[in-house]
Amino acid sequence: MPKNADEMLEFAAAHAKDLAAPGLSPRPQRKVAVLSCMDTRIDLFPMLGLERGDAHVIRNAGGLVTDDAIRSLSASQRLLGTEEIVVVMHEGCGLSGASEDDFRRQLAEDGVLPNWRLGAFSDLEATLHHSLDRLRTARELPHRENVRGFVFDPEDGSLREVDAPER
Amino acid sequence: MPKNADEMLEFAAAHAKDLAAPGLSPRPQRKVAVLSCMDTRIDLFPMLGLERGDAHVIRNAGGLVTDDAIRSLSASQRLLGTEEIVVVMHEGCGLSGASEDDFRRQLAEDGVLPNWRLGAFSDLEATLHHSLDRLRTARELPHRENVRGFVFDPEDGSLREVDAPER
Repeated sequence: MPKNADEMLEFAAAHAKDLAAPGLSPRPQRKVAVLSCMDTRIDLFPMLGLERGDAHVIRNAGGLVTDDAIRSLSASQRLLGTEEIVVVMHEGCGLSGASEDDFRRQLAEDGVLPNWRLGAFSDLEATLHHSLDRLRTARELPHRENVRGFVFDPEDGSLREVDAPER
Repeated sequence: MPKNADEMLEFAAAHAKDLAAPGLSPRPQRKVAVLSCMDTRIDLFPMLGLERGDAHVIRNAGGLVTDDAIRSLSASQRLLGTEEIVVVMHEGCGLSGASEDDFRRQLAEDGVLPNWRLGAFSDLEATLHHSLDRLRTARELPHRENVRGFVFDPEDGSLREVDAPER
């Protein structure tokens, strides 16, 4: 019987004083939203120098610009005042080299044919480039001038930019 | 001109040694995925006692069980071995009490009619309950027995469970 959830509740209860942020605004002070992968080796706060109150954090499998990422970013900009987007993908992603067909077959065997694709990719930089292009032309976003893309390598801890914006 | 992205790159470069996790598996060691809101007041690692390597972290506007969250959770379980899901919503969410109509009108004025809804809600606990129900019946997920839902209150730092699982 998994007990992560119980352990998490206990942990939070023991640290409530540190977790309280009374009066901290839901509007990110640094006016930035970060979109990244769900990968277990990524903790964006110590990676990017973020404190609570600074940024919105959006994460999904791959750090892909899905419709739902656009929904979140649109809410971030239109309701809560962010104006800048940073996308963080990474080396060694579980979606890199995965097979859409195998995944789809596995789902079909369980009787489900989803209306989404896994999002497997083979070329990390091309995928990130495509994501940045999509964000820069997304009319759902009022602020699409400041969109930057990084690649994190968990093996050596490096973060490099891919596709610097036109200046 | 926003300079968050540049500052983040500089910060990461100065901390690469701490960010490196050579050999750390992309398969979460605690076999758990956390789904939460993008809210700026939420940092899940110190909230739930997570270390890098422990969990997948999925975040979107609201911490809602969207199709894309199902995609990510499905990848998490089918490709990377997680077996447990913890959903963390929170008090004071930007989507709480927001207007779908106003948001849609704003988008329409910018010439876009998205195929998604904002996800505004009025009843936090009912929304979380609905999310848990959806996950527990989602055949996209091979492991749907251990799904738990929490509500975080950023004002006092408390984390409480909503809708304990049937035992």
